[in-house]
Amino acid sequence: MTLSVNMITMESIEIPKVLDDSSNIQEFLSRNKGKKVIVVQGLGFVGAVMSLVCANAISHEYAVIGVDLATEDSYWKIKSINEGIFPLIADDPKITEFFDNAKAKGNFLASYDPLAYKYADVVIVDINLDVQKQSDEKGGLKSFDVNLNSFKAAIQSIGRNCRDDILVLVETTVPPGTCEKVVKPIIEEELSKRQLTLENYRLGHSYERVMPGPQYIDSIREFPRVYAGVDEISADAVEEFLKTIIDLSKCNLTRLEHTNATEMAKVLENSYRAMNIAFAVEWSRFAEEAGVDLYSMVNAIRARPTHTNLMFPGIGVGGYCLTKDPLLASWARKSHFGSNSGLEMSINGVSINDQMPFFAFNRLVEVFGDVSDRKVAFLGVSYRGDVGDTRFTPVESLVEMVRQTGAEILLHDPFVSFWQEQNCAVEADIDNIFLSCPDFIIISAGHSQYKQEPTIEKLMALSPSFIYDTIGLFNKEQLAILQTKHKVSVLGRGDLK
Amino acid sequence: MTLSVNMITMESIEIPKVLDDSSNIQEFLSRNKGKKVIVVQGLGFVGAVMSLVCANAISHEYAVIGVDLATEDSYWKIKSINEGIFPLIADDPKITEFFDNAKAKGNFLASYDPLAYKYADVVIVDINLDVQKQSDEKGGLKSFDVNLNSFKAAIQSIGRNCRDDILVLVETTVPPGTCEKVVKPIIEEELSKRQLTLENYRLGHSYERVMPGPQYIDSIREFPRVYAGVDEISADAVEEFLKTIIDLSKCNLTRLEHTNATEMAKVLENSYRAMNIAFAVEWSRFAEEAGVDLYSMVNAIRARPTHTNLMFPGIGVGGYCLTKDPLLASWARKSHFGSNSGLEMSINGVSINDQMPFFAFNRLVEVFGDVSDRKVAFLGVSYRGDVGDTRFTPVESLVEMVRQTGAEILLHDPFVSFWQEQNCAVEADIDNIFLSCPDFIIISAGHSQYKQEPTIEKLMALSPSFIYDTIGLFNKEQLAILQTKHKVSVLGRGDLK
Repeated sequence: MTLSVNMITMESIEIPKVLDDSSNIQEFLSRNKGKKVIVVQGLGFVGAVMSLVCANAISHEYAVIGVDLATEDSYWKIKSINEGIFPLIADDPKITEFFDNAKAKGNFLASYDPLAYKYADVVIVDINLDVQKQSDEKGGLKSFDVNLNSFKAAIQSIGRNCRDDILVLVETTVPPGTCEKVVKPIIEEELSKRQLTLENYRLGHSYERVMPGPQYIDSIREFPRVYAGVDEISADAVEEFLKTIIDLSKCNLTRLEHTNATEMAKVLENSYRAMNIAFAVEWSRFAEEAGVDLYSMVNAIRARPTHTNLMFPGIGVGGYCLTKDPLLASWARKSHFGSNSGLEMSINGVSINDQMPFFAFNRLVEVFGDVSDRKVAFLGVSYRGDVGDTRFTPVESLVEMVRQTGAEILLHDPFVSFWQEQNCAVEADIDNIFLSCPDFIIISAGHSQYKQEPTIEKLMALSPSFIYDTIGLFNKEQLAILQTKHKVSVLGRGDLK
Repeated sequence: MTLSVNMITMESIEIPKVLDDSSNIQEFLSRNKGKKVIVVQGLGFVGAVMSLVCANAISHEYAVIGVDLATEDSYWKIKSINEGIFPLIADDPKITEFFDNAKAKGNFLASYDPLAYKYADVVIVDINLDVQKQSDEKGGLKSFDVNLNSFKAAIQSIGRNCRDDILVLVETTVPPGTCEKVVKPIIEEELSKRQLTLENYRLGHSYERVMPGPQYIDSIREFPRVYAGVDEISADAVEEFLKTIIDLSKCNLTRLEHTNATEMAKVLENSYRAMNIAFAVEWSRFAEEAGVDLYSMVNAIRARPTHTNLMFPGIGVGGYCLTKDPLLASWARKSHFGSNSGLEMSINGVSINDQMPFFAFNRLVEVFGDVSDRKVAFLGVSYRGDVGDTRFTPVESLVEMVRQTGAEILLHDPFVSFWQEQNCAVEADIDNIFLSCPDFIIISAGHSQYKQEPTIEKLMALSPSFIYDTIGLFNKEQLAILQTKHKVSVLGRGDLK
């Protein structure tokens, strides 16, 4: 995760002990009188940007309050937003544009006070729902569990404060069945406790397909979207709201029959992707053993329209979704719908993917031998090309394994200045990496910079080194050039005999 | 498999006991003097049609001899071709056109005599290579084995007869490594035994992507094709030959680095498909349990270009390829390349698919209860819509399971007049099925006829019945109509609450 400076200097921020932000909220509301109020619950990768999209809605002028917790992990985001610094660094210029607009209009506030829900016409739930995984020594999945407690607490805090005509729109990826079997009972219980009617609230689910990167904003605003309600009238309310923030000249809304269906569609969508990656992982091992090039095979096969989603091999799966969503689904099948079976194929896919860094390290040792006395430069620490997102990046495990050999580690990433999970700085200038004379280069993320001419030239200027391309970044011509000087190996590309 | 009349009256055909067809071959060759000779080994679904494509080559006039065995299973095809009746019934008009052309030119002979290889410039290997599967009581895969003996014998018969400048082009789907580790040593051993040089023969692999159906011929002639040689000079020879039979104005040739790669690409391609189907299978169970509609979810998800290959649920996988190719791959990984691992994910996919008819039957009993006293009509026995191919059709297992309840079975298929594997006739006229007043209709293949207006009308004219759509053939409007009279259930579409 790429963070703004506020995070780094966070120790100087004092976290409020009493959750009373009422004066700021009152002042904000009086400045935005007459506007409908949207509260976005959760200011992470989705919620922060969703807030911007709502504050810059297509056909409505909303007052948007982003709510997060007054904790060490989250409070800095609230402070950062209110001080005029957006808490995510992204190479989408629209982020700055939308944030600047919201500042100019004064219609975006961040807060930690649940009081905000009291004024909301719409609450959008964008909090995390994590899976607890236990792994074996190869990184493979041993067991996992889903704990809904903090999710339930968040919904409770809405129910305890909201008006009885609220629209609650869950965007969080949840185990299928959650809106009906978890959210609805909590909201109704809390409304009942306050002697409020249960007739007027609306509850729906519409999953985001946010993609941090250069189209960050558009991945919400201009991307096809699936939605549903727990009943027809809720679905209508969700549709009406989505129409005000999504640009329907660029994409469609699809209504499914029930929140069970949208919740399932989201985890199905991500499980499909995870399973496709796992499939490529398994075959990349085989290709290496048989001494053939999986990349050229995949290219040849993708010529068929029925096979365009076949994936290239790589170092593994990262990010917040693909590493856990199949598990949410499997858990829900048993826990919410009473099945005896999970989703074995999808779970197996997650486990195979989780072992990828281990395989990549094995291959490294097999090809290059002992690297303990090498100076190893990792080019790229994020989990995806041209994106600064390091959540669950598989590079982390590979870095750990190489570090444990005793090798010296250098890290480069043009999109990550501070690596939160590793609590360390990352070099942004590739020249500084090369000035340190690494003798082993690991291409670990597919940033465009790495395959461009200048980087190839710089690699050729190094003394003879090892180069390990774990993602098939270089094309055949580039490989041929690099191999004239360096020992090069590519994951999933067997050594031709 | 749809067969011509010759098969049905086969008992009257006398199979030659001595493999001497030399006079026919000599006479054929003298009629085709000056033409290059292509021998196609195997006259099955691929070889028979490949022979037509060669006899109607783009830029060459070839003399084509199709060779198959003088056995009960195969000899009728030889006889049929030589009597002017093409042995496969297909709804591709080009089949008739190409066969008529070949008859008029007199450049296509079928034979059982290995002598044919002696005159061949090119031998195309289109024989079967089967996997022996052992299944559990649900149809799941218990174990499997690959026996190369008959494949080796076929290659031997080429090696014992061929000239030393032969081009052997293997089209059979083989375990990766087979050309290099099996075919090459056999050919070289046989040439050596005859004191012939090993310098001049060429050996390559190029896999077909034949799709029996209305584009049967074009699925060979106008479809992108991948090829390789065991060495560069062999790859050149394969390319030169393919250019004469493939229409390169309509598609491309892709050369891979080695036959190991093309062999792997073929089984990878089919394993990808099998795995995608297995993925849908698993989720269709979940959708049924959660009472939601997997079809509408898949449609919503397919809007993303990264997810267009996501498949709809169905009754299972049939056909010759997807049911075994992942196993060939896994076997080869261990047997040809010495790995300790198979391809667990792909094998698991085959096993899940093999269990589909069992799941479909379970769902049937769950929804409709006891059917033992019903008259059950299966609409469609082939494994694919608008195609008459019944090889490994999953309908067979479902028919067996329903039959075992004691129910009366009616079979309909417009593309299958005789069901070879079940050794029974199949009704082609749907009116005759409906005249028998079935009270349970199972939609078991996706033939277009079934979803057209007249069939819906005929279904509505029946007395109230059960309808079980195992492939999601009917759209929502059609379902709504049918449900006004019948009890209808769709596989993968949970009963909405």
